[in-house]
Amino acid sequence: MVVGELAHERDLIIIGGGPGGYHAAIRAAQLGQSVTLIEKEQLGGVCLNKGCIPSKVLTNSAETFISMKKTEEIGIESDSVQFNLRKLQAYKMRTINQLREGIKALCAANKVELLAGSAFFLSEDKIGVENGEQYDVFRFKHAIIATGSSPNAPAGIKPDHHRILDSWSITSLEILPEKLLVYGNDYIALEMAFAFNAYGSEVTMVMDQNDFSFDLSINRELKRILKKNQIKVIKSTNISSAYTDGEAVIVSLENKEDSLIGTHLFVSSIPTPNTANIGIERIGIEKTESGFIKVNEQCQTSKPNIFAIGDVTEGPPLAVKAIKQGKTAAEAIAGIFSEADFRFLPIVAHTRPPIASAGLSEQEAIDQGYEISMGQFPLSSNGYAAILGKKEGFIKVIFDKENHALLGMHMIGSGAIELISSGVLSLEMVARDEDLLFPLYPHPSINEGLLEAAEALKNQAIHLPLVTKKERLKV
Amino acid sequence: MVVGELAHERDLIIIGGGPGGYHAAIRAAQLGQSVTLIEKEQLGGVCLNKGCIPSKVLTNSAETFISMKKTEEIGIESDSVQFNLRKLQAYKMRTINQLREGIKALCAANKVELLAGSAFFLSEDKIGVENGEQYDVFRFKHAIIATGSSPNAPAGIKPDHHRILDSWSITSLEILPEKLLVYGNDYIALEMAFAFNAYGSEVTMVMDQNDFSFDLSINRELKRILKKNQIKVIKSTNISSAYTDGEAVIVSLENKEDSLIGTHLFVSSIPTPNTANIGIERIGIEKTESGFIKVNEQCQTSKPNIFAIGDVTEGPPLAVKAIKQGKTAAEAIAGIFSEADFRFLPIVAHTRPPIASAGLSEQEAIDQGYEISMGQFPLSSNGYAAILGKKEGFIKVIFDKENHALLGMHMIGSGAIELISSGVLSLEMVARDEDLLFPLYPHPSINEGLLEAAEALKNQAIHLPLVTKKERLKV
Repeated sequence: MVVGELAHERDLIIIGGGPGGYHAAIRAAQLGQSVTLIEKEQLGGVCLNKGCIPSKVLTNSAETFISMKKTEEIGIESDSVQFNLRKLQAYKMRTINQLREGIKALCAANKVELLAGSAFFLSEDKIGVENGEQYDVFRFKHAIIATGSSPNAPAGIKPDHHRILDSWSITSLEILPEKLLVYGNDYIALEMAFAFNAYGSEVTMVMDQNDFSFDLSINRELKRILKKNQIKVIKSTNISSAYTDGEAVIVSLENKEDSLIGTHLFVSSIPTPNTANIGIERIGIEKTESGFIKVNEQCQTSKPNIFAIGDVTEGPPLAVKAIKQGKTAAEAIAGIFSEADFRFLPIVAHTRPPIASAGLSEQEAIDQGYEISMGQFPLSSNGYAAILGKKEGFIKVIFDKENHALLGMHMIGSGAIELISSGVLSLEMVARDEDLLFPLYPHPSINEGLLEAAEALKNQAIHLPLVTKKERLKV
Repeated sequence: MVVGELAHERDLIIIGGGPGGYHAAIRAAQLGQSVTLIEKEQLGGVCLNKGCIPSKVLTNSAETFISMKKTEEIGIESDSVQFNLRKLQAYKMRTINQLREGIKALCAANKVELLAGSAFFLSEDKIGVENGEQYDVFRFKHAIIATGSSPNAPAGIKPDHHRILDSWSITSLEILPEKLLVYGNDYIALEMAFAFNAYGSEVTMVMDQNDFSFDLSINRELKRILKKNQIKVIKSTNISSAYTDGEAVIVSLENKEDSLIGTHLFVSSIPTPNTANIGIERIGIEKTESGFIKVNEQCQTSKPNIFAIGDVTEGPPLAVKAIKQGKTAAEAIAGIFSEADFRFLPIVAHTRPPIASAGLSEQEAIDQGYEISMGQFPLSSNGYAAILGKKEGFIKVIFDKENHALLGMHMIGSGAIELISSGVLSLEMVARDEDLLFPLYPHPSINEGLLEAAEALKNQAIHLPLVTKKERLKV
C-alpha cells in the first residue's frame, strides 16, 4: 500500500463467503454492524458449491433411485427405471444457483456489502482487496477470517478431476464410473461409495488401518450393509501411487503386490486450512501446531479484533461448526457474550441407510472412565420401519450408570438424521434415562425406536424378547 | 356361573389385545406377573388390523407414488408409473400378518397366555370367557380392560363397507374410487383424502363448522395445500343422508339443495368406546358422563383391582395413549409408581406433507392466559428441503414471553414426524428458547428449520429477511 492511499472505512470485514462467513455476516448485520463480505470465488463457499449441497443432491437421488426399484410390492409399477447422471448435474446446478441467489438476496436485505476479490491483511486494521485491475484498501474495526479449506491429496496421488477425483470434483461427474475406487473411511467416502453403488457403479473402498469413525456398533452394522450392497472393502492399506492409463486408473497399494484397476478413483482426505496468502503471518496471528488459526471460545484470534471461524480453525471441517462459529464471532463482535461449544456436535452421514450420532461413543465413554449402561433397539422390530420396508439399522443410547445421564446417541437407519436432534437436545439439557422414558412417541413411528432403545437399558423394550444378562453384554 | 364350577386362577387378566393390551401384557410379564391376554378377534386390535398400520401403508405408498412422478429432474427416468391398489392390499396383509406374528412371538417369549374369546365380568374378581362351545371362568387378582372402540357413523349414514366406508373399511378397498367423498375434518379424514388424491381419485371433503384441529397456521397452510392438490373442501355443513344407487353414492347436505354425488363415501367420525357386553355395569365400574370408563392417573377404575386403558377411557383415541396407559397400568399393578400424563401428546398426520404437533397451539396458549412470543420458519428457505424438492410447510414454535419456556411446537413439512420428538422432549424438559438456540443442528438438514424457527423469535433467523415488527405480527 502506498502511503497516503485512501482507505475505505468499514465496521466488520469478513473474508470468505462460505456458510461460516455468510452466517457471520447476516448475524452481525442483524445486530447492527455494517458488514463487508469478501469472496474470491462463489458465494456459499465449498459447502454450497462443491461440498455438502452437491453431495446431498447425489445421495438423495441415489436413495430415491434405489427406493424406486423396490416399489412393486407396494403397488407401484413402472416399466424401466433409468438413472441419468447428466440430468442430475443440471438439477444440482439449478439447486446451487437458486440457493446462492437466496444468500445474495439475504445479504442485500441485511445490507451486507458483497465484494469479489482476494483479501490480504496489510496490518491489524487494514486489508487490501484485489480483483483484477481493481485494488482497494479497507480499514476495519473487526475482521473475521473464514477462508475455509481445500482438499489435500495424499502423496503419490494427483487428482486430474477427470478420472482421479477429490471431494470437489467427484460431485461434478457427468458420466457414471464403471468401476469406482474410493480411498478413505470418512463420511464423504461412505456417502459417495453408497451413492455410486446405487447408480450402478462397481465400488471398491480402500481404507487404512483405522476403522470407520462411528460408534463400534454402527461400524459393525455398516460393514454388514456395505457387504450386502456388494461394496467391496480393502482394509489396512494405503494407496502408494495412482496413475491413469487411457480409460483406467491403476492404483498401487502398500504391502500388496497386485494393483487395483478402476475406471475412476475418488480420494477423500482431510482438507488443508486455507491460511496461506492472506497475510496472517505478516500481522502475527498465531497458529496451532497443526497449522490452524488459534482461537478462543468466542473465535477470537491472538489479535483481539480479528476472529477466525470454520475450517481454518481446529476441529472437524463441518459446515455445522463453521455456522455456529460464524454466529458466535458476530455476536462477540457486537458485544454479546456467546460461545461455540462442540461437545454435542451431531455427526451425520447420508449413507443408505443414514447414520447420525451425537455425544460419546461406547469406546469414548469407557476411555473417559465412565461406567456405562446401554440400550439398543433394532429397526427390524419397529412397526413403522416395516411399513416403509426400511428395516435396517438400530438406535443405541449410552448412559452414565451412576447418575443415569445420557452420554451418547447413535443411530443408523431411516429417519436417523431428523431424529438425532432429539439426542442433541437431550444431551444439551442433561437428560436422564427417565427423560427419554416418560415422554410420548407417535405411533407408528421410527421415533418409537428411540423409546425402546431407552427401555432396553432395563431389559424392558416391549418389542424385544427378554434376554439374559449374559446375552445382553454381547449386544 | 354355576356354583361350584371350577375357576382357573390368574394374576392378571387383560381383555383386549390391541396396542394398549399387548403393551400392558408384555410390560406386566417383564415385571414378573403371570398374564393372560384375551382377544376375541385378532391380536393387534384395531390399530394393527384396521387402523394405524393399514392407513400408514396407504399413506406411505401414496407419498412414494407422488414422489416417483417427480423424479425426472433428479435424473431418474421411468417409462410409466402406475398404481395398483390390489397389490398394495396384498402388501398390507403381509405387513400386518408379519407384525401380528411378531406380537405373538413376543407374548410367547414373555410367557403371556393368549386366549381367544369374549370376556364378561362375573364379579370383582371373576371373569367368564366364551369361545364357541368353550366356556371358562377365571379368578384374577387384577384385570385391565382394553376393549378399544368402534367407528360410529353419524345418523343418516349407514356404511355398507363397499361404497360407504368407515375408518376400518376404507383401508381395505381393492378398487380405486373414481370420486371419493370424505366426511370429516380429523387426521384420518385428511390422511385418506391425501392418499386417494395421490392415487388419482377425485377427492371432495365435507366438513362441519369446525376447522381442522391443528394450530391455526397449520390449518391455513393445509387449506392452501389441499387446494393446490385439487382436493375440494365443502365447509360448514353436515351430511344429512347418504345412499347408494348402482355405482354412485348420493349425499344430501344440510342447508344445501344440490346433492353431492361420488362413487364412494368415507365417513371419519369419533369412535364409540367398547364398554357394552363386558359386564362392567354388573360389577359397578363407574363411567364418565360421556360413557367412558372413569380412571385415575394410574389407569385404575373405581374398582381398585381393575384398570382400564386406551379408547375405553377418556381422551384422544390414539394408540400412543393406549400404549402409555398400558405400561402405566402394568407398572401400577406390579407395585411400581407410574403415571400416564398426556400434556405433551404428539399429534401427527401422515398427510402430504406430514403434520406433527406437540404442546399448546397459538390459540390454546392465548386462551390459557399466556403472553406468547412465536417464531416460524418456512421450509422454502431451508437448503435441505430445496435438495429434496420438498419445500412446502414450516416449523412454528410458541414460547411463554415471560419466562421463555417452550409451550408448543407445530410442524408441517418433510421430516415433521421424526422431528416432533425434539419438541416433545424439549417440552417435557421445560426447555427455554436458549435450549433450542444453543445446540448444533446438522447441515444441511430439515432440523435447521427448527433452529431458525427459534431464531425467528428474535427476528434472527439467518435465512429469513429482516421483517418489521408490524409484518411479524401477521406471520
